[in-house]
Amino acid sequence: MADQVILLDSWASPFGMRVRIALAEKGIEYEYKEEKLPDKSPLLVKMNPVKKQIPVLIHNGKPVCESLIIVHYIDEIWKHKSPILPRDSYQRAHAMFWADYVDKKIYSLGRQVWLSSGDEQEAAKNELMGCFKLLEGELGDKAYFGDDAFGIVDVALVPFYSWFYVFEQCGNMSIKAECPKLAAWGKRCMERESVSKSLPDQQKLYDFLMEVKQKIKAK
Amino acid sequence: MADQVILLDSWASPFGMRVRIALAEKGIEYEYKEEKLPDKSPLLVKMNPVKKQIPVLIHNGKPVCESLIIVHYIDEIWKHKSPILPRDSYQRAHAMFWADYVDKKIYSLGRQVWLSSGDEQEAAKNELMGCFKLLEGELGDKAYFGDDAFGIVDVALVPFYSWFYVFEQCGNMSIKAECPKLAAWGKRCMERESVSKSLPDQQKLYDFLMEVKQKIKAK
Repeated sequence: MADQVILLDSWASPFGMRVRIALAEKGIEYEYKEEKLPDKSPLLVKMNPVKKQIPVLIHNGKPVCESLIIVHYIDEIWKHKSPILPRDSYQRAHAMFWADYVDKKIYSLGRQVWLSSGDEQEAAKNELMGCFKLLEGELGDKAYFGDDAFGIVDVALVPFYSWFYVFEQCGNMSIKAECPKLAAWGKRCMERESVSKSLPDQQKLYDFLMEVKQKIKAK
Repeated sequence: MADQVILLDSWASPFGMRVRIALAEKGIEYEYKEEKLPDKSPLLVKMNPVKKQIPVLIHNGKPVCESLIIVHYIDEIWKHKSPILPRDSYQRAHAMFWADYVDKKIYSLGRQVWLSSGDEQEAAKNELMGCFKLLEGELGDKAYFGDDAFGIVDVALVPFYSWFYVFEQCGNMSIKAECPKLAAWGKRCMERESVSKSLPDQQKLYDFLMEVKQKIKAK
């Protein structure tokens, strides 16, 4: 029997994008189910009762939750092509450190840049740019974070490339000017079909997030 | 040549305790170096330049950072005894979900219970107890979180057993009364030498944290 793979996701989610990229890298066919957030479908609540968050990968009826854990799982189950995590334990620990760093920093700081104002926004913007500079240092002159192979740190970070325009507009900052290698890396990743078909258009995402911001402010 | 293993740690850190437990489970000899926080040794800054945080495991001169990543690494390098992560990919993803849940919730909520007061403390206390109840549900009638084997979720959570007295005193709450299975699990874990020798005495930790609280308040 063929594997049954379902992804519960939301198009603007950088966490969902990670899973889409990993599935595309592996060439896995799956059923995509868009959640109409902030409403949550009964299936989402059933499959992720603890957090009730997307993305959830449902593999042969069993749920896997949390984007980086899902990417790990995909890499282990479908070993046949495009390894995402390094095989060497030390290199894997090093890559996981940076993937975890991205996970803990970028979304929450980016959210502050997008939704706050004044001093709070200024502080978040400076901290976010500091994170990007550290990541640029880690990238160095390599094509991808995983040396010359596209890997877990790329998968963790590149969804935020679709948010760059949001950060730049809301925070009045230029990622390209301050982190040219990181900007070039984002563009390079977009040349991969797995990435370009998984990420939304920057302008479309910006328009959507500005609508969300208006709704939050109106409450 | 024998492996050289050094642990940069701080005795009261629940994150450091995880690493001590994993090393003890595997029977690995190592050099323990206590950091005198909030000061940071030049070695710590050199080995973890991004976060400058303990714990850091230095294995043959190379640093591994972030407690859960270190435990993963230890489990992979020293495979010969006491597996910490399940071998099955689905079970591993499930266990990592709960270890990640503990990682994201317990320390930060516990810190609010310990350091804040009034409404903020009350809200944190209720949320923390909600987390413990969810964990109690996941534990059920099993001896350990990893079914009947001591594993990654146990390693991630049990250091907070040494903080239970702090939470109960500061938050005026009884974990034993509200989560009897979790309290019994903590006691059961303490019967393992790997845990009992890695965790400080609850009263000693309480006295220390009250001193820290006084210093923070005096600032």
